[in-house]
Amino acid sequence: MTEKLTGIIPPVLTPLNADGSVDEAALTKLVNYLIDSGVDGLFVLGSSGEVVYLTDEQREQVLRVTTEVAAGRVPILAGVIDMTTNRVLEQIKRAEKYPIDAIVVTAPFYIRTAMDEVETHFRTIAAATKLPVWAYDIPVCVGTKLPAAFLVRMGVEGVLAGVKDSSGDDVGFRRLVLANKAAGSPLQCFTGHEVVVDCMALLGADGAVPGLGNVDPAGYVRLWKAAKAGDWDKAREEQDRLANLFEMVFQASTLGGGAAGVGSFKTSLAAMGVFSHNRMSTPATRIEGDAADRIVSLVKEAGLL
Amino acid sequence: MTEKLTGIIPPVLTPLNADGSVDEAALTKLVNYLIDSGVDGLFVLGSSGEVVYLTDEQREQVLRVTTEVAAGRVPILAGVIDMTTNRVLEQIKRAEKYPIDAIVVTAPFYIRTAMDEVETHFRTIAAATKLPVWAYDIPVCVGTKLPAAFLVRMGVEGVLAGVKDSSGDDVGFRRLVLANKAAGSPLQCFTGHEVVVDCMALLGADGAVPGLGNVDPAGYVRLWKAAKAGDWDKAREEQDRLANLFEMVFQASTLGGGAAGVGSFKTSLAAMGVFSHNRMSTPATRIEGDAADRIVSLVKEAGLL
Amino acid sequence: MTEKLTGIIPPVLTPLNADGSVDEAALTKLVNYLIDSGVDGLFVLGSSGEVVYLTDEQREQVLRVTTEVAAGRVPILAGVIDMTTNRVLEQIKRAEKYPIDAIVVTAPFYIRTAMDEVETHFRTIAAATKLPVWAYDIPVCVGTKLPAAFLVRMGVEGVLAGVKDSSGDDVGFRRLVLANKAAGSPLQCFTGHEVVVDCMALLGADGAVPGLGNVDPAGYVRLWKAAKAGDWDKAREEQDRLANLFEMVFQASTLGGGAAGVGSFKTSLAAMGVFSHNRMSTPATRIEGDAADRIVSLVKEAGLL
Amino acid sequence: MTEKLTGIIPPVLTPLNADGSVDEAALTKLVNYLIDSGVDGLFVLGSSGEVVYLTDEQREQVLRVTTEVAAGRVPILAGVIDMTTNRVLEQIKRAEKYPIDAIVVTAPFYIRTAMDEVETHFRTIAAATKLPVWAYDIPVCVGTKLPAAFLVRMGVEGVLAGVKDSSGDDVGFRRLVLANKAAGSPLQCFTGHEVVVDCMALLGADGAVPGLGNVDPAGYVRLWKAAKAGDWDKAREEQDRLANLFEMVFQASTLGGGAAGVGSFKTSLAAMGVFSHNRMSTPATRIEGDAADRIVSLVKEAGLL
Repeated sequence: MTEKLTGIIPPVLTPLNADGSVDEAALTKLVNYLIDSGVDGLFVLGSSGEVVYLTDEQREQVLRVTTEVAAGRVPILAGVIDMTTNRVLEQIKRAEKYPIDAIVVTAPFYIRTAMDEVETHFRTIAAATKLPVWAYDIPVCVGTKLPAAFLVRMGVEGVLAGVKDSSGDDVGFRRLVLANKAAGSPLQCFTGHEVVVDCMALLGADGAVPGLGNVDPAGYVRLWKAAKAGDWDKAREEQDRLANLFEMVFQASTLGGGAAGVGSFKTSLAAMGVFSHNRMSTPATRIEGDAADRIVSLVKEAGLL
Repeated sequence: MTEKLTGIIPPVLTPLNADGSVDEAALTKLVNYLIDSGVDGLFVLGSSGEVVYLTDEQREQVLRVTTEVAAGRVPILAGVIDMTTNRVLEQIKRAEKYPIDAIVVTAPFYIRTAMDEVETHFRTIAAATKLPVWAYDIPVCVGTKLPAAFLVRMGVEGVLAGVKDSSGDDVGFRRLVLANKAAGSPLQCFTGHEVVVDCMALLGADGAVPGLGNVDPAGYVRLWKAAKAGDWDKAREEQDRLANLFEMVFQASTLGGGAAGVGSFKTSLAAMGVFSHNRMSTPATRIEGDAADRIVSLVKEAGLL
Repeated sequence: MTEKLTGIIPPVLTPLNADGSVDEAALTKLVNYLIDSGVDGLFVLGSSGEVVYLTDEQREQVLRVTTEVAAGRVPILAGVIDMTTNRVLEQIKRAEKYPIDAIVVTAPFYIRTAMDEVETHFRTIAAATKLPVWAYDIPVCVGTKLPAAFLVRMGVEGVLAGVKDSSGDDVGFRRLVLANKAAGSPLQCFTGHEVVVDCMALLGADGAVPGLGNVDPAGYVRLWKAAKAGDWDKAREEQDRLANLFEMVFQASTLGGGAAGVGSFKTSLAAMGVFSHNRMSTPATRIEGDAADRIVSLVKEAGLL
Repeated sequence: MTEKLTGIIPPVLTPLNADGSVDEAALTKLVNYLIDSGVDGLFVLGSSGEVVYLTDEQREQVLRVTTEVAAGRVPILAGVIDMTTNRVLEQIKRAEKYPIDAIVVTAPFYIRTAMDEVETHFRTIAAATKLPVWAYDIPVCVGTKLPAAFLVRMGVEGVLAGVKDSSGDDVGFRRLVLANKAAGSPLQCFTGHEVVVDCMALLGADGAVPGLGNVDPAGYVRLWKAAKAGDWDKAREEQDRLANLFEMVFQASTLGGGAAGVGSFKTSLAAMGVFSHNRMSTPATRIEGDAADRIVSLVKEAGLL
């Protein structure tokens, strides 16, 4: 179901109750909101989904609710994020209990890893599952940048089926797209860069995984459709509007990266009535006061309230 | 049992069978080798113990074997390493099934975290366990340096009982030792810097957690005793010899950090007959060929064969 | 002359004789080659011009030759790169002897500098010259990223006239372009990102400063014209071709960054007969052997031989 | 005169007049203060001397005053800091006009440089001067760590005569000291780490270049003498006192690194009457208000007022 996947696949947030447990009602609302807005797929248990904050039980809870609510309407990619190979394999066993369409895997982290060890990591994982494996290239979190040539080689050899690029390295992404095309397009190449989706569409991305797409999925769907139709002026206008909305992630600048970014999306969805509130996973701080007000203003400005 | 703990506490390696499972017989031998050599405690499930490579089940296996073999002869500190607060709490629940004396906790990793979030992390953990909590300061793995003033404040407030400093920042360590002393010494301050233990003893460290201490525990015990006796010439000589032995971690320079460092210790212990072989956790590569030969030569040169 | 400057402004290379002195004949050929290819301006003494390798005397030599040869046909921006404010002021005095149109200034480097010190730096420089001052945002070399809000504020206050963005941070660049537009466009915003010029044109860049534009200036001119005409398919095709050509900078991968990148451009221009050879400034190594052959193949493939 | 140099060599600060020019009277006082306190040499135009802020003319002024005032009483090492080889050679020509005893050279900076290029850099410089060349290992400023094996090889081949280690990497420094000893001690190995001079003496450093030694040179001289006499308790006590005094560099924490560190030393010397005031080079901010008060309190506490 993910083989020819293109378009907008938001990395689904994980709403929480006041006691820190997963808010199943809010998650249900969010999944429906996204699908009703026309997104092409869902990526659950990614960084935006606070995957590294959730216990194994909570991760399963997210998978259960999401797959039940989505009910096959769109494909579901699931992050199986853990530090090293064997721990990822355990996460895959848990994820495979649910009807997901692909898994998304980072390079090992915590310990510095050489590239041939990274290769062993992806090969071992691909050999252990029938699900398509997507590489999650997120050096800011894991400390390793996956080179374009490596990714394409893994694609050609059938180890990897796709890439979610959150590296912030657009030169690298263009090299990936071009090398992938030259190799017969074994990989689906998605960008996680939510403020340059028009640009990435222009250079040949198969789609985008925008965190901000939790807040304004319809905007990203319009942007993508305009780009596919060759209406680049409209694509840019939509992206400029979304880039302005994205300023929300810079409002709570004293908080950690997770709390400021994901926290601003949660604050927006709370204002929009999709979430009950903007609780973050411990130890991330929820956004309050002036920063929250500025975020809500941006949401209003974007016509979402 | 850890309140007045001083001296040498090696971070215990985790030997593996050829199929990657924990080698309980070799672990038993290692624990006895360390205790018989006079070490003052054991730190299991640290970075040198490949904790981030072990599944939750394997972690319990290590705790079970180690506590059974040690049988109360020395205190045991256990790493409960995971990405964020709630996941660490789950690790603590598992660790508390075994008679350990303290837990060792890093700052959150994968997601960039602000210092007040790091504080929430440690406070939440300390509130959830009766065991003393030691902070594991290892910025190269987690991306956060724990400032001396923060650590001492957490010590004064009873949140933290000790620090294992693997930051490589000796200026920071001296500031920590001085600030801790000025505050009435609420913290046990241990260095993880295995080639400057004589220096750290001079400036007031309570002890050391040397990875190389798996290979030559008696050497570190002699070094520490000489330092405590004020025989600094002898301490330096012992440390110089150990620093030469430590060159083993630079022999397999094309491998990742874990494979080169911990791998050289495993290679040594295999040559010494404590381990059956030098298998690493997937995806880390085991050391072979010339690099392994050079490591064994260093072990021989150090009089350990 | 730079007020409404848009389009392609290559960062002019500095050809050298075999003895390391500036090759005035080759520089003359290069300047004519670029202007004849239709570029909109020249940026001399930038990183690609090996400015930090040139003595003060050689810098003047480059300025003299370039301004004489250009003879007013296109505006000339000159890098006045030095470590701190007073040293930059000395460089400006030297540069002002020649009929240049603007100066390009980095943040201070070598010593870590706070943002209010960076502001003092740019204000002091702007107060000391009548020439328009462009900020050169190149964190990989100077260790400081210039924030979009800071740059726009400096534009509004008349301190800065333009920005040459070599940060590799396209999110930051889009934020800069949008904030600049919202402030009445006080700044000229140029990207140094040579493989995404189509994208940067789409999001509103005023122009590009592509190092690879030394090798294929006509290609970049065609790309820019297509973008301005709204022919994004053609712009992308041209950029894809240039991105393939850009693979030259990855061929001599064991050399330092300067030698591999600028060195590949010099190797190309030598093959094309514009330069006599590909000599680099000491201590950078010139490219030879297989790497040089692969670079020449790419030049051939691009239709430039 | 530097061949058998050991002991304390402060990196001499550069006092400035209110207009930013070099304050020759204060520099004269400082040089005499240091020599009268018993230091073993002077290192002028280092990072603490704000070398990268001084114009070429000001650098010569510092060299002239220092050599005249010192008048051969102690050896003088001079920093010839610039970005690349040819520019350093120009600095050497200027420095050689004055009776200095050695030059101190960093790796190239601004452009990323491969190690064989760094080697070419030092070889070219050594071939161009009769003065002994010391390597200045300061990765935080130049982005390159000089490996121990490289430095010792350069020592054996007569390229380098000494090392000033400001890397903050004590493991690396011990490896350097041991490898140098094993090679017949071709290098003088000095540490720039002012709060662990007792430790570095213990492990075999030839001396120290403490920035704080501008403020309390007699303290460092006492520390060094105690260490050489094997009185490690006294050495540690002196170092602990100096470590407490060093807290001054953390008082103006919002300023850039130069302004906070060197600025605190200037603030101290102004309070002590050696300097007229604590003016920093543009664009560094001078310390005022509470931070200045706290610094002066530390000076008072250390018995220097």
